[in-house]
Amino acid sequence: MSTPTEYPMAPALQVARWFNTDAPITLSGLRGQVVVIEAFQMLCPGCVAHGLPQAAEIADTFPVQEVAVLGLHSVFEHHDAMQPHALEAFLHEYRIPFPVAVDAPAEPGEGPIPKTMQTYELRGTPSLLVIDRAGRLRIKHFGRLSDMHVAVAISKLVSERETITGFSTVATPAVKGATCTEDGCTV
Amino acid sequence: MSTPTEYPMAPALQVARWFNTDAPITLSGLRGQVVVIEAFQMLCPGCVAHGLPQAAEIADTFPVQEVAVLGLHSVFEHHDAMQPHALEAFLHEYRIPFPVAVDAPAEPGEGPIPKTMQTYELRGTPSLLVIDRAGRLRIKHFGRLSDMHVAVAISKLVSERETITGFSTVATPAVKGATCTEDGCTV
Amino acid sequence: MSTPTEYPMAPALQVARWFNTDAPITLSGLRGQVVVIEAFQMLCPGCVAHGLPQAAEIADTFPVQEVAVLGLHSVFEHHDAMQPHALEAFLHEYRIPFPVAVDAPAEPGEGPIPKTMQTYELRGTPSLLVIDRAGRLRIKHFGRLSDMHVAVAISKLVSERETITGFSTVATPAVKGATCTEDGCTV
Amino acid sequence: MSTPTEYPMAPALQVARWFNTDAPITLSGLRGQVVVIEAFQMLCPGCVAHGLPQAAEIADTFPVQEVAVLGLHSVFEHHDAMQPHALEAFLHEYRIPFPVAVDAPAEPGEGPIPKTMQTYELRGTPSLLVIDRAGRLRIKHFGRLSDMHVAVAISKLVSERETITGFSTVATPAVKGATCTEDGCTV
Repeated sequence: MSTPTEYPMAPALQVARWFNTDAPITLSGLRGQVVVIEAFQMLCPGCVAHGLPQAAEIADTFPVQEVAVLGLHSVFEHHDAMQPHALEAFLHEYRIPFPVAVDAPAEPGEGPIPKTMQTYELRGTPSLLVIDRAGRLRIKHFGRLSDMHVAVAISKLVSERETITGFSTVATPAVKGATCTEDGCTV
Repeated sequence: MSTPTEYPMAPALQVARWFNTDAPITLSGLRGQVVVIEAFQMLCPGCVAHGLPQAAEIADTFPVQEVAVLGLHSVFEHHDAMQPHALEAFLHEYRIPFPVAVDAPAEPGEGPIPKTMQTYELRGTPSLLVIDRAGRLRIKHFGRLSDMHVAVAISKLVSERETITGFSTVATPAVKGATCTEDGCTV
Repeated sequence: MSTPTEYPMAPALQVARWFNTDAPITLSGLRGQVVVIEAFQMLCPGCVAHGLPQAAEIADTFPVQEVAVLGLHSVFEHHDAMQPHALEAFLHEYRIPFPVAVDAPAEPGEGPIPKTMQTYELRGTPSLLVIDRAGRLRIKHFGRLSDMHVAVAISKLVSERETITGFSTVATPAVKGATCTEDGCTV
Repeated sequence: MSTPTEYPMAPALQVARWFNTDAPITLSGLRGQVVVIEAFQMLCPGCVAHGLPQAAEIADTFPVQEVAVLGLHSVFEHHDAMQPHALEAFLHEYRIPFPVAVDAPAEPGEGPIPKTMQTYELRGTPSLLVIDRAGRLRIKHFGRLSDMHVAVAISKLVSERETITGFSTVATPAVKGATCTEDGCTV
């Protein structure tokens, strides 16, 4: 039987700037809500076709007081093409309704992977992160999931009170050399 | 706050015969599981395109000990074209994986609507019925629902223990004269 | 360079009865038009999902004086479930707009494959047959084709005057034992 | 009856730079082929979802000696976000297989609409332009077309020898103020 201490606390987001919100958002400020984070790149075909529409439908399906949906723009390739001013145009044209954080760029010499993406050891984009009411990282998934599976998983976290069942995070080590398929772009 | 007594017990299914099961199934025998019933007609385009594939995905997503999925073939038009031997061929060709009940035909002089469909006062096909662990009818929906909404609704019933929150059945009176649209066929 | 004699004349359809037309239709009566025949079974999932909608779009795209679209209900399995009265209900519910012929049943002792399907040596359903203005069989294809490829092929036949270029029929021997996949049902 | 002189010659493309080709391409150099031009913006949702995939399928369906497919990146909004270096990343990630021209920016003081887009008086993106073997503009369409209609239209131009039938260009005046819908972005 799982106990709360088996799941790691979700590390803080490291954010260069925010869109679609008046004030910066912190994970600790969302304690009590389930938090869904869609990590994406604006030029990642799988993010545009599947990841972001699914995140928008999550935001549309669950009450905001139960589930907070955030975007995280984690650029690890073609950095020049995906600067914040380009992201702003993208968010406008694709009518993304939820707050979006720009993942803080790596320090000089650290390579192409931005800071939050490093910390969470994401394999690529799109990646779905789900954090429970207590701030623990419960789901980390790279690539495509069915709407039904995602909804079941989030629903379980919404309905949790004291006990925790069923999910585990899968730590996926980052590797060099990005490629994109229909499903997503990997580091 | 809702209490259990606010929801009606789901009436027993009235079944002429079963497919995809060795023994007849009763709602009372499924007490303790959430029960999802997909009421359909084999020649209803919306059932074939949306309703039955969604029911199959529900069966694939939820553990069978938590959620039982049943089909209910409720023929209210073109009765000659949708007899049980035709349904058997249909279930084979469309690879329907879950048990399917043939709704018992109406008594002579009662009109075209079969018995379970009458009792549940369904508007047409496809209709989704969801019954909670205690045997109460919690959801009755005619037409199309998103996978995400369906999964959230079923998940809430799965996670219920003592208390009940949120859903209500919508009693929809049956009317004469069937027509089919892309979404479904109405009585 | 191809010459007209390289292509076989399309054999006459052998029809038990017609739907969606006031009078029987013959291929010889359609000479001068390109003729598109969608061979299908009403309980074949690939026919319902892809073949028949594509045939309806062909009928909607090409002027009727240039291209005649016909359905051919060639039942080679589950005969009891797909009798003409059931087909009539199917054509009504799926709003099939073009004339549909019921392929004449095989003689007793000949096996399950109906007569036109035998004559044309079809592999299964859906099969697309295209006949040129001069009555020659130019395309015979089992399974799924993209809308763009189908439109290009038909367009070439529409634009032909004296010369003939490019297509060949592929004679595909009939074999015993029917199975259906997502793409179609084979004999 | 149409005569060749009724159709205007397609004006020369005004191009800042090319991608996916070793040497610049001119319409006059493509005389003898039908030329399909997909005018798009990389941040236009309708271009990404429908226009560009359709152009790629045209390139895949018609022999290159008959039909040349070109992209034309006509940016009329969010110019900073869609500079050529960003386009290069986009073309890579979306695996666009055909040559793409960057529409030459307007002169200072002329407004946001690039030169070729001005000359052709396009309403927005995606727009499909089709030019016949003799270099005449035959189709100009803003928004979405079915694959079947596009294939029929192109096929007719491919099959033309001396005579011309059926198409007309629709001159659509450019207006100020861009907006994007699911189908496209208008000027």
